[in-house]
Amino acid sequence: MNELRKDPVTKRWVIISSDRGARPNDFDYTEDVKESYCPFDYGNEESTPEEVLSFRNKDTKPNDSGWWVRVVPNKFPALNGKELLKEPHGMYDKISGYGYHEVIIETPEHNTNFSEMSKRQLKEVIWAYIKRFNEIKKDENIKYIQIFKNKGKRAGASLKHPHSQLIATPIIPITIADEIEGAKEYFGFRDRCVFCDIIRQEIEEKERVIFQTENFLTYAPYASRFPYETSIIPRFHDSDFGELTKEDDLIYELAEVFYKIFRRFKKVLNDPPFNLVLHTSPFRENTEEFFHWHFEIIPRLTNIAGFEWGTGFYINTVAPEKAAKDLRKEEENL
Amino acid sequence: MNELRKDPVTKRWVIISSDRGARPNDFDYTEDVKESYCPFDYGNEESTPEEVLSFRNKDTKPNDSGWWVRVVPNKFPALNGKELLKEPHGMYDKISGYGYHEVIIETPEHNTNFSEMSKRQLKEVIWAYIKRFNEIKKDENIKYIQIFKNKGKRAGASLKHPHSQLIATPIIPITIADEIEGAKEYFGFRDRCVFCDIIRQEIEEKERVIFQTENFLTYAPYASRFPYETSIIPRFHDSDFGELTKEDDLIYELAEVFYKIFRRFKKVLNDPPFNLVLHTSPFRENTEEFFHWHFEIIPRLTNIAGFEWGTGFYINTVAPEKAAKDLRKEEENL
Repeated sequence: MNELRKDPVTKRWVIISSDRGARPNDFDYTEDVKESYCPFDYGNEESTPEEVLSFRNKDTKPNDSGWWVRVVPNKFPALNGKELLKEPHGMYDKISGYGYHEVIIETPEHNTNFSEMSKRQLKEVIWAYIKRFNEIKKDENIKYIQIFKNKGKRAGASLKHPHSQLIATPIIPITIADEIEGAKEYFGFRDRCVFCDIIRQEIEEKERVIFQTENFLTYAPYASRFPYETSIIPRFHDSDFGELTKEDDLIYELAEVFYKIFRRFKKVLNDPPFNLVLHTSPFRENTEEFFHWHFEIIPRLTNIAGFEWGTGFYINTVAPEKAAKDLRKEEENL
Repeated sequence: MNELRKDPVTKRWVIISSDRGARPNDFDYTEDVKESYCPFDYGNEESTPEEVLSFRNKDTKPNDSGWWVRVVPNKFPALNGKELLKEPHGMYDKISGYGYHEVIIETPEHNTNFSEMSKRQLKEVIWAYIKRFNEIKKDENIKYIQIFKNKGKRAGASLKHPHSQLIATPIIPITIADEIEGAKEYFGFRDRCVFCDIIRQEIEEKERVIFQTENFLTYAPYASRFPYETSIIPRFHDSDFGELTKEDDLIYELAEVFYKIFRRFKKVLNDPPFNLVLHTSPFRENTEEFFHWHFEIIPRLTNIAGFEWGTGFYINTVAPEKAAKDLRKEEENL
């Protein structure tokens, strides 16, 4: 049975997911994702748990072919418990492995990825994110939903077929809690959203801007931890990603942003492994005024070393101004 | 010129180290450390900056052969500025790249590592850590010294020759600041050191203990983030690693702990890449009562994926109780 455990010093929670019982020699160091049989291809729908959402042709049945986006529970979920139990373990704290862990199969096409998909397909993927987000949010035990994508084995993917994931947790993860705390403190001091101030300064300075659209800013953060780290943020203030559902045009615009940035990564960085992660407001926490949802993209170009693990203090060998410039100059060729 | 930059939301500092000017295609994905010429071998002493410390035969000269441990400034330092300048950049904060970045060359032997070294050699390496730690501590601009070791390219090493590193920073890194804050809060509540309480519970429970010696506990933390994550902590309360200098026997005992644990990693986990990081008290911060120095060892068996980056919330597929059991059962064979 999986469980959540809290570190008594840092208050960081971890998921102990030992259901699969990995043995010491189970870890493999090869760079490629293994594949002999793909559970996400057309015709193999039975090898996943039953779908919880699909966008599919009218004359097709659930869990059959004919879909263009399909969402299924993860077959090996990190969280899935039926009951939310909070208990002590001596001086330590634990919670049962309550939550959701789902896979968003982005397309039936096995050999493609974000840098090759059409804008329309990307829009459908984002729609699937939003629909599941708003559905799971109704569960009052859930405090946060993490939407993310790992592309490439180095980025943590275990299957090549294009997919994103969603993990819904009964606690607020520490990185989000830290961002909220920082944003709240800034708001208390200045009565302004720190992210709105960042957007203002970045647009004014221009140096770290990769590109702007009417409603979104794509930029290299001032204190980027990784070479070519990229943020996508709505230029209007909104704490809750789920709210996007109200505006279809906005979702299409976000799909265009995805379309552009991943094609630039392909061109400039040779289609690197990457992680895409959404930061949005936790539920029932009244962060509307000072939090601001955004996506972070981390191309996985370097190995994280001991200094970074030890300190949380990253050494980045590519200045964000240079990263933005490299990614900007592809503009005309796309 | 390198600089430190602060993220305005999370207050996390990063080092922007763009002196070497990496180009988009400079990143390589191969698993092996390249080596044609080794700057750390005997006879190649001139290819490093001049040594700041060495343990060597009496009849040999500095920067010549005849040493058994040698400490040199990093040729491509992350921090090295001569002047400490703190400045704003619009709404952002930055500091000049002030600090120290040194390499502890652990042995003249090119093809060995911690899992093969003698206890005596390991003791000499620890002595070198302590000597440089206490020397650099005298610089009042330095708030923290991070001692760490990356073994294997996956763990971030760029050279195979056994070496550790030291980075001294003018700020307190966020992970350390978070540990201090948590430890201080616990102390405020209970008037006891949280680490001393952890040691007490671990020894009582036994399940996560890998082994104990008279003065040190080696265990798998309750909320381990990674498979086979291991902590080494002194059983007596001490916040400052530099204090070890007073007791030669204690240093030899710590060397024996290193000797044992790395040999077990070799046997059980097939000599994996790993990071070793020291957490100790920052300087001039009065953390004596509630902080407690310790080493963390992270075998690099898995890739860190998007969920972890996005949330700081780790999924660990090996329960620490199982990790400790696997590492414990090698006892009799060493």
